[in-house]
Amino acid sequence: MLDVCLPGTGGMIPLENRWLTCCWLEYQGKAILIDCGEGTQIALKESGCKLSHLNTLLITHYHADHIAGLPGLLLTIGNSGKTSPLTLVGPKGLEQVVTALTVISPALPYPVYLCEIKEEKAGELTMDGVSIAYLPLNHWVPCFGYRITVNRKPIFNPQKAARLGVPVPLYKTLHAGQPVQLEDGRIVQPDMVLDGERAPIRVCYCTDTQPVEGMTDFARGADLLISEGMYGDNEMEEKAKEKGHMLFSDSARIAKECGAKRLWLTHFSPALTKPDAFSETAQRIFAPTVVAHDGIRITLSGD
Amino acid sequence: MLDVCLPGTGGMIPLENRWLTCCWLEYQGKAILIDCGEGTQIALKESGCKLSHLNTLLITHYHADHIAGLPGLLLTIGNSGKTSPLTLVGPKGLEQVVTALTVISPALPYPVYLCEIKEEKAGELTMDGVSIAYLPLNHWVPCFGYRITVNRKPIFNPQKAARLGVPVPLYKTLHAGQPVQLEDGRIVQPDMVLDGERAPIRVCYCTDTQPVEGMTDFARGADLLISEGMYGDNEMEEKAKEKGHMLFSDSARIAKECGAKRLWLTHFSPALTKPDAFSETAQRIFAPTVVAHDGIRITLSGD
Repeated sequence: MLDVCLPGTGGMIPLENRWLTCCWLEYQGKAILIDCGEGTQIALKESGCKLSHLNTLLITHYHADHIAGLPGLLLTIGNSGKTSPLTLVGPKGLEQVVTALTVISPALPYPVYLCEIKEEKAGELTMDGVSIAYLPLNHWVPCFGYRITVNRKPIFNPQKAARLGVPVPLYKTLHAGQPVQLEDGRIVQPDMVLDGERAPIRVCYCTDTQPVEGMTDFARGADLLISEGMYGDNEMEEKAKEKGHMLFSDSARIAKECGAKRLWLTHFSPALTKPDAFSETAQRIFAPTVVAHDGIRITLSGD
Repeated sequence: MLDVCLPGTGGMIPLENRWLTCCWLEYQGKAILIDCGEGTQIALKESGCKLSHLNTLLITHYHADHIAGLPGLLLTIGNSGKTSPLTLVGPKGLEQVVTALTVISPALPYPVYLCEIKEEKAGELTMDGVSIAYLPLNHWVPCFGYRITVNRKPIFNPQKAARLGVPVPLYKTLHAGQPVQLEDGRIVQPDMVLDGERAPIRVCYCTDTQPVEGMTDFARGADLLISEGMYGDNEMEEKAKEKGHMLFSDSARIAKECGAKRLWLTHFSPALTKPDAFSETAQRIFAPTVVAHDGIRITLSGD
């Protein structure tokens, strides 16, 4: 079960009624945050996200609306009782930006590790058993989209285990992929009690960008594609290109092509006061589109 | 007429229902802002403060709750249409801190001037015809209190001017302290039409600090003393000393001793969810104490 929440859905400037876009993903009590603009720490509180659970912070790029909240967030996490490490992941420049911004938050009660993605090419890393893939996007500074994959254990068949005489306390070991030895000396292998693989849970997050080749493959079959909808009106196409952003319809086309189960649009222009007014523009292309709002939340089971 | 507003009244951490402490002072369409923690740009909007009017930003010290909003504020000011210079004033370290934080807001459409107060001693400077005095406070980093003084023109007596035959369009020149020559050749000096001096308007702003010698003189006769009330309960005295802060009663005593006309308490601890509950603690010492709230506003005429 992967909980996903967008505590904020705005772009460029934090507004009185809309926090800047960020994404909280929590799996087995460990959380990943994508981006932290000014005010994100308040948005997280409003959405009930527990800062002490945060283990990984992914930064898409270093425009202020995606990073300016870092020093305040780090300090407030320190007040949340966290002592375990926090890992920051971001494009080239991570060390320089973090060093600069934390001039006003120099002493923290937990270690901060930096994982700088030095090259602008796709890759993958694993944090807390969750796979994090990244894809270079097309903005006017280095910028990555992220794909979070939770690989689920195969289905455990308790009937098969019972027929083999496996004591219940050993089920967990078998389910985790380890053989067990019974009291009578027999060895039971995991494949004797498992009923095949389950599809992983995939969430793909892409802001800020123009449509890029590779994004469709990157987001292929995602349970949830979160993608930017800076502008709702198709007539804003030229401005979107000029500013390095996407229309609702751009994201909807990608969601359709990649076979995502659902699409959340986010990162709305401050001028887009009623993003809902353009829902149909996207839904005509990809029906399961949701124009997101601050605090939108879903629990993905992958089934 | 000096407009004064506290768009935020919190300390340490921005909360869902309380912005971080900052102060907006506007005189003749030119504004001074004191401090800019995370979210201050939103607080300013909520309080109706026009960012394009901002000419001077005074920073008390470089703890995150007083400065973390700087890069976002600078960018949003850039979007407000401002092209005239913005001057930043702050204790030693200003250049280092501003250079570091603006790594994410490198290009601005207006010049930013830095005025670093290198020595920890009192002084005074003048910006846009307003006097800005500063006093070293007692926090655990270099920190200044600020006193804003608006020197008002003497009272103009239109009856005297009329008796001398001064045409109305020349009143303004005389009121500004310049002599005028009439058509018949006579010179009229300002003191011939002015009715004496008027007391200046003074606002004194002091956070974060323990009570310091000199603060009473610094705030002498202020129309408004804005002073920190990190803790309401007198039983927090030890904690206040340890953390370098003041109680409501500390600020009330200073307001009484300095003969201020009124006191606004601000910079409340996040744990102080209902600062109003401790109003009487201060008002017993200094009756015209107001426990401030976000958006509190006053227009000071000095009369």
